[in-house]
Amino acid sequence: MKFSINKNTILNELINVSRAISTRNIIPILNGIKFELKSEGLYLTASDSDLTIKSFIPTDKIESVEKEGVVIIQSKYLLDIIKKMPSDIVNFEGVDDYKIIIYSDNSEYNLNCLNSLDYPEIQLEDNKTHINMQSSVLKKTISQTIFAVSQSRPLLDGLNVKINGDLLECVATDSYRLAKKIVKLDQPYDDNVNIIIPGRNVSELDKILNDNEDNVEIHVFAKKIMFKYNNIIFQTNLLNGEYPNTSSFIPTEFTHIVTANLNDFYGSIDRAALLAQSKEKNVIKMELKDDELILSSFASEIGKVEDKIKVDRNIKDDMSISYSSKYMMDALKTFDSEEILINMNTDSKPIILKTKDDDSLIQLILPIKTY
Amino acid sequence: MKFSINKNTILNELINVSRAISTRNIIPILNGIKFELKSEGLYLTASDSDLTIKSFIPTDKIESVEKEGVVIIQSKYLLDIIKKMPSDIVNFEGVDDYKIIIYSDNSEYNLNCLNSLDYPEIQLEDNKTHINMQSSVLKKTISQTIFAVSQSRPLLDGLNVKINGDLLECVATDSYRLAKKIVKLDQPYDDNVNIIIPGRNVSELDKILNDNEDNVEIHVFAKKIMFKYNNIIFQTNLLNGEYPNTSSFIPTEFTHIVTANLNDFYGSIDRAALLAQSKEKNVIKMELKDDELILSSFASEIGKVEDKIKVDRNIKDDMSISYSSKYMMDALKTFDSEEILINMNTDSKPIILKTKDDDSLIQLILPIKTY
Repeated sequence: MKFSINKNTILNELINVSRAISTRNIIPILNGIKFELKSEGLYLTASDSDLTIKSFIPTDKIESVEKEGVVIIQSKYLLDIIKKMPSDIVNFEGVDDYKIIIYSDNSEYNLNCLNSLDYPEIQLEDNKTHINMQSSVLKKTISQTIFAVSQSRPLLDGLNVKINGDLLECVATDSYRLAKKIVKLDQPYDDNVNIIIPGRNVSELDKILNDNEDNVEIHVFAKKIMFKYNNIIFQTNLLNGEYPNTSSFIPTEFTHIVTANLNDFYGSIDRAALLAQSKEKNVIKMELKDDELILSSFASEIGKVEDKIKVDRNIKDDMSISYSSKYMMDALKTFDSEEILINMNTDSKPIILKTKDDDSLIQLILPIKTY
Repeated sequence: MKFSINKNTILNELINVSRAISTRNIIPILNGIKFELKSEGLYLTASDSDLTIKSFIPTDKIESVEKEGVVIIQSKYLLDIIKKMPSDIVNFEGVDDYKIIIYSDNSEYNLNCLNSLDYPEIQLEDNKTHINMQSSVLKKTISQTIFAVSQSRPLLDGLNVKINGDLLECVATDSYRLAKKIVKLDQPYDDNVNIIIPGRNVSELDKILNDNEDNVEIHVFAKKIMFKYNNIIFQTNLLNGEYPNTSSFIPTEFTHIVTANLNDFYGSIDRAALLAQSKEKNVIKMELKDDELILSSFASEIGKVEDKIKVDRNIKDDMSISYSSKYMMDALKTFDSEEILINMNTDSKPIILKTKDDDSLIQLILPIKTY
């Protein structure tokens, strides 16, 4: 293998594929990135066996191709090596199957390679049909839900994706809060889909997607899902099991509906949460009184804080409810609107956040009982 | 006590004085910041008993003064509280000696105060004479030496400052490297000075000083040193003991004098150090061969790197020497020049860095024997 390439061209693709390399990986060959130089261009592949990312750089974006070939280069140090190269063009030259020289100007790295025959064969074929989504829409949907994924509980550590006709629904919950987003697809999809994508891998996909109008092809298989985005193939295994039916947890009738300015409400929680720092999840108290929401917290020995905002409300009955300020702020960040509806029943029933006249995004937060 | 003040005015001074509050402090009263509102203005004081910082905001920079007084406000949360205040003006109102309300708009913090009678009396009087230095010069001198201070060894964890006539000399060493800077003062100082300032406190002083031409008064006492900079008094105790006489360690005659472009040399070390990451202090090898410096390192199983730069040299004899790339890069960062002189004798004698025709800044690095 021998080729020369622009430093930033290869660096960007190495950053993309190396997202598949896990720090917890214990299979030596999967610490490597597969370089396949063919007549049409350079393929880069990295995998942790659960997640595989493959990127392609066509020949017209490669400075010069002198000899095709396959090598597995250890990913450790590789990004730094390319980043710090002193000139714009970086040269790769295989000495034999087990050694590669990466050089430019007076800088020369002589790296041991892994045996390319050891690299697993990973099936990355298209499905017969697929879903199309704009990159920016998919990225937004991920950001509006992924934060609510559980860090530890089985199945809840994944993002639940359902497709029914032309509606795609994403749900994430850690059982204390829930985020749900529905997107209308341009075309209906033939099969009914109800899958769980590992949350960790969804976060990596989010980093690869740009906030642009480019199309993402989504290929759903029985045990895996593949995203094709420009020159990148991103494929992850699915979690095996049935996601709880969350729709029954989400109330649709409310006794108290409060309309608040989103930024004012966010700022008020942010300030009220300051003295709640020492407690788990930073619990604050919210009181609905006359035309005000009064947010408060206290820290023993330090003092207390009370922050008020003016709101509109549908009912005269006052109420008081406590919840995690962190969860409330996470949820509020997913809305772009000026106003937010805070829907409640009693101090022990879920709080539902949504905007007026739009049910496509719902955030649920369970209150916390304080005595 | 009752006053109103611009949020950023008080925030900046609170940031300055809170640098004296130690996270390791175990005396409850010293977790507080002393607010003294007098007819001439507001004094803020914080101390960890070793370091004291006092700041003054004159009355004309205070929005309104309604009632003078003294309170000790717990520093924990205080900066965040002020930072997050929703309006430009923040109001302070003491309820009694043990409670203060900080409020603006609809946000109200009710904080417990500490007993002001418990706050220690700290002498912050001027000395009869003092040294004057421009803030930018003092700041530069600190940055050129402080990084070499030891993190653990007694006395070497301080910055050695000597004054002799109109020459001020700063030395820091951790016994593996040494940084020495000599500054010419505008006026000679009457007494001979040879003191050790705790390194940790010098770093805090550095953060308070701006890179400007404002004057810093330096008052040297037997057991403490005081810096007066604009509205700030910064006073720290000195370390008690005798700093080793370092001048005998610094060679002045060299067999090998290499002249290199500073940026090229720095970049070359940065690249050569990449594969040395796993080893303590990132040892790299430097060979002087013909008109080149060849820097190299290797990581077992990964590979090796060799990086070359063209240099000028005073002698034909080749040599090879190994050292910590981190220490060399730290030292190189202190020079502003285009060229750097790398002065050496043998592979076990100190390397001295300096610029041509200027001995005011010297960086010493001990080589590391590799076999």
